[in-house]
Amino acid sequence: MAAVLSYDDLPMEWVGNWSGRRAALTPERLALYEPDSERCLTYRQADRRAERAAAMLTETLGIGPREPICLLSRNRLEAVDLYLACGKTGVVLAPLSYRLAQSELSDLVRRIAPRALFYDEAFADLAGKLDLPAGAQRIELADGRGPYFEAVEAGEGPASIQNRPLALADPYLYVHTGGTTATPKICVVSHRQMVWNAIDILVTSGGSLGPQQELLTFPLFHIGGWNTLTPVFYAGGYTVMPRSFDPGQALELIEGEGITHFGAVEAMLQLMAEHPRFAGVDMSTLEQITTAGAPCSSWTMQPFWQRGVRVSQSYGMTEAGPSNFLYIGDDQGIDELREHHDSVGTSMFHTDYRIVDPEGLERVPAGEVGVLLMRSPHNFDGYLDEPERSADTLLADGWVYSGDLAYQDDEGYVRLVGRVDNMFISGGENIAPEEVERVLLRHAGVRKAAVVGVPDPRWGAVPAAALVARDGAEVDAAQIRQFAERELARYKVPRLMRFFEELPLTGAGKVDRNRVREQLTRENAAASGEEQA
Amino acid sequence: MAAVLSYDDLPMEWVGNWSGRRAALTPERLALYEPDSERCLTYRQADRRAERAAAMLTETLGIGPREPICLLSRNRLEAVDLYLACGKTGVVLAPLSYRLAQSELSDLVRRIAPRALFYDEAFADLAGKLDLPAGAQRIELADGRGPYFEAVEAGEGPASIQNRPLALADPYLYVHTGGTTATPKICVVSHRQMVWNAIDILVTSGGSLGPQQELLTFPLFHIGGWNTLTPVFYAGGYTVMPRSFDPGQALELIEGEGITHFGAVEAMLQLMAEHPRFAGVDMSTLEQITTAGAPCSSWTMQPFWQRGVRVSQSYGMTEAGPSNFLYIGDDQGIDELREHHDSVGTSMFHTDYRIVDPEGLERVPAGEVGVLLMRSPHNFDGYLDEPERSADTLLADGWVYSGDLAYQDDEGYVRLVGRVDNMFISGGENIAPEEVERVLLRHAGVRKAAVVGVPDPRWGAVPAAALVARDGAEVDAAQIRQFAERELARYKVPRLMRFFEELPLTGAGKVDRNRVREQLTRENAAASGEEQA
Repeated sequence: MAAVLSYDDLPMEWVGNWSGRRAALTPERLALYEPDSERCLTYRQADRRAERAAAMLTETLGIGPREPICLLSRNRLEAVDLYLACGKTGVVLAPLSYRLAQSELSDLVRRIAPRALFYDEAFADLAGKLDLPAGAQRIELADGRGPYFEAVEAGEGPASIQNRPLALADPYLYVHTGGTTATPKICVVSHRQMVWNAIDILVTSGGSLGPQQELLTFPLFHIGGWNTLTPVFYAGGYTVMPRSFDPGQALELIEGEGITHFGAVEAMLQLMAEHPRFAGVDMSTLEQITTAGAPCSSWTMQPFWQRGVRVSQSYGMTEAGPSNFLYIGDDQGIDELREHHDSVGTSMFHTDYRIVDPEGLERVPAGEVGVLLMRSPHNFDGYLDEPERSADTLLADGWVYSGDLAYQDDEGYVRLVGRVDNMFISGGENIAPEEVERVLLRHAGVRKAAVVGVPDPRWGAVPAAALVARDGAEVDAAQIRQFAERELARYKVPRLMRFFEELPLTGAGKVDRNRVREQLTRENAAASGEEQA
Repeated sequence: MAAVLSYDDLPMEWVGNWSGRRAALTPERLALYEPDSERCLTYRQADRRAERAAAMLTETLGIGPREPICLLSRNRLEAVDLYLACGKTGVVLAPLSYRLAQSELSDLVRRIAPRALFYDEAFADLAGKLDLPAGAQRIELADGRGPYFEAVEAGEGPASIQNRPLALADPYLYVHTGGTTATPKICVVSHRQMVWNAIDILVTSGGSLGPQQELLTFPLFHIGGWNTLTPVFYAGGYTVMPRSFDPGQALELIEGEGITHFGAVEAMLQLMAEHPRFAGVDMSTLEQITTAGAPCSSWTMQPFWQRGVRVSQSYGMTEAGPSNFLYIGDDQGIDELREHHDSVGTSMFHTDYRIVDPEGLERVPAGEVGVLLMRSPHNFDGYLDEPERSADTLLADGWVYSGDLAYQDDEGYVRLVGRVDNMFISGGENIAPEEVERVLLRHAGVRKAAVVGVPDPRWGAVPAAALVARDGAEVDAAQIRQFAERELARYKVPRLMRFFEELPLTGAGKVDRNRVREQLTRENAAASGEEQA
């Protein structure tokens, strides 16, 4: 027998050839619709565009397999062309967030060293300011003009079919993540990861994504965007892709395109539910909304449940998924989802998980809080050129260290508690500030809450809370404290509570816990001084 | 970074744990129904049975990973228990065909050397006659009695959860195939093969198998049986599993259980369409029938099309799939299927294929007949203990040699022509006897046809046909020849045609071409003698 050492390393023609395979199977089905430009593609048309984009990459630009290109773009068909073309050629796609500052982007471009930068006409100024390696091309993606349009949209051919056999282990994407505190990390995402995450979604959800009419709400510079598009495209469904998220347009598209599913972060659902069109839009085709990115409150899900739409939480991270947990439910009813809305369900079919103590990485008993480890064929392949950071995350036996605290409830479902990095110790007890925040947010007068540990001479640290009151609510710290004391163990109740107009945010739009901690540490010291005086 | 060499070789908990994962995701959904015993299982119940069967294998019988057990059984829940239990423990399941003769079974058992033989009470006599290796147990699967029933169906526990992490590359099944001419081959089927073939079916078909209500018609001693059960179980669907195929029962179940899909060989569809209940049965839930095993004629599909049921062909082989080709279609209509009914469509999403010349294995131009090669992550892992036969089939770069002749038509769809082993050369021209047979069978007076090459002093060989007339039809060879001459190139028209009451069959129920060739060679020699005389 001619030994095949590993199917992970065996080049195969279908790997990365998403559009070619779908064009062979279901050529005339609608694949993609971009409402902003009113362009619609069948699978055959999407594949022809991908072939021409692949010819541009390899023949015109001379870019080889494993060489990267950068993409700075809104969600537009050209971005999908390049994703599909990279799949055909083995070129690596590195999407960049247009929300980053120029200095952050310059740093990423320097580290990625792309052979070309493809940029949306909307970001022409920003793209022009980024330093590229010598010889790298800048190529604009513009409506109805320019060399990309001429070659790919208006072009003929190519003469020869562009498809290189690739192995599942070959790199496909470089996706940057995080960066709230340290340098952004660049995740190496293999074809195996993208294929298996799509499989995990299809199998876990019972294969119901196939004939799906999907609304793509996530930007394509996060893996969540590609991870929404890919399973639907893979199984021959239809994806509607606005250039960016707008709640009014999203509502219109749900009705107009008969959307059956979309993913969303909590803020998107809030904007949609608060939109004047919400009540009047026909949502009868909408079967399911999956929330992602961070835990979503029942308060946000409620207006959709009332309209008969299933909403449930998912959880995952770029390094391990990006989809790893999802609550499925036995029936198609909403009550079952409502009952489990505050868990992320159980791990998806192909995701192993463990909850371990942060130091020894030994399993903790069921019900106890620990750090979540995950393992699946959709593990990432490490951080680009950072072996030490990679080794801290990708552990022995294929386990990925999430840094998220979680526990398993009585029914076997997993509940997330917070980040291990945010945890602090008060009198020997671990406190996850996110758990305290969730309780505070249940008080009707509290709109935002951030809890941190501040130094205390007796307990080492004590919890302190920065709060933002709900508009028009008249609340004081004593009321909130009373409320918190009913819901939390005494040592978790914030010793200090202060109201602010707003909470400080990081560049990524998350609460800046470091600045909250500095402020509350000062206030706590001052208050202790007063007490002593 | 802790290097993971290959995800093919990395032990993971979900691999083989079909029932454990589904029980975690959708515990209360119905998984399996066995109408003959009126037993129905949820996913949680199926998993509890599998855990108890796993405990029996490992704790009671002391069987370790990679050690085989044999199964001689009709389709019954106990067979599924053992399949799921082998997935949890790494024990290898070797199902045996109860249609084989005792001597054939004895030979297979000797080669497999199982640690235990599990047999259906219906085959107690046969099982008792098979020689087992020293120390191997014989365990009866019986309704409501016996040690298996006590341990698995009536049993409690087990105390500890039985699930061993397995790698995708680990062996799962030993499946015997063929044996029309030579010793039966025993295919080594890995977990990777079973997982990926299920994935290929789910993705290619657009994920529509998830909420499926499947009727399992194929016996579980062929891989096609497991390959029907697995994708539906994997995605959380519902499978109805009669103990064996009966056309009247199948029709009843379609209506009674709201069956949405089943697979069938041509003879099953003929028996159903000829059944007195056919016309009266409600088939409104039935979306699709997939034919397998051999090309199915439009004549057989027609009664189902008329009832509004989609029927299309699939193709594959145990060594490469078992599912490799399927016609999907862009819409859900029947006309599109009817138009393509005589092709097997194109290869499934994850199956690469090539059509090559039988000697040099170089690609032939599109439209030309050659041997079909296939490559996918659901390749088999060779024949048990037969390195030479394995090397003849599993070629370099992961290609599986099918031995089937095929060509690609103008639309890019693949049409099967025949077996390369049946092909013969007449005056320098290749003739695939199956192509000639299909033309002869289109004549209204012909019920069966077998074409072989018989020796000829001038052309090397010439085609000769053994025919069975349709009941009541009055036809003679001259009429058939006239018909064939309109449809076939002159050199393909059988020189000799003879009518018989029946055609000789092999043990596997296929036409015995060797005996046909012997008979027609004699008749041809006699006829030539008469001509010369």
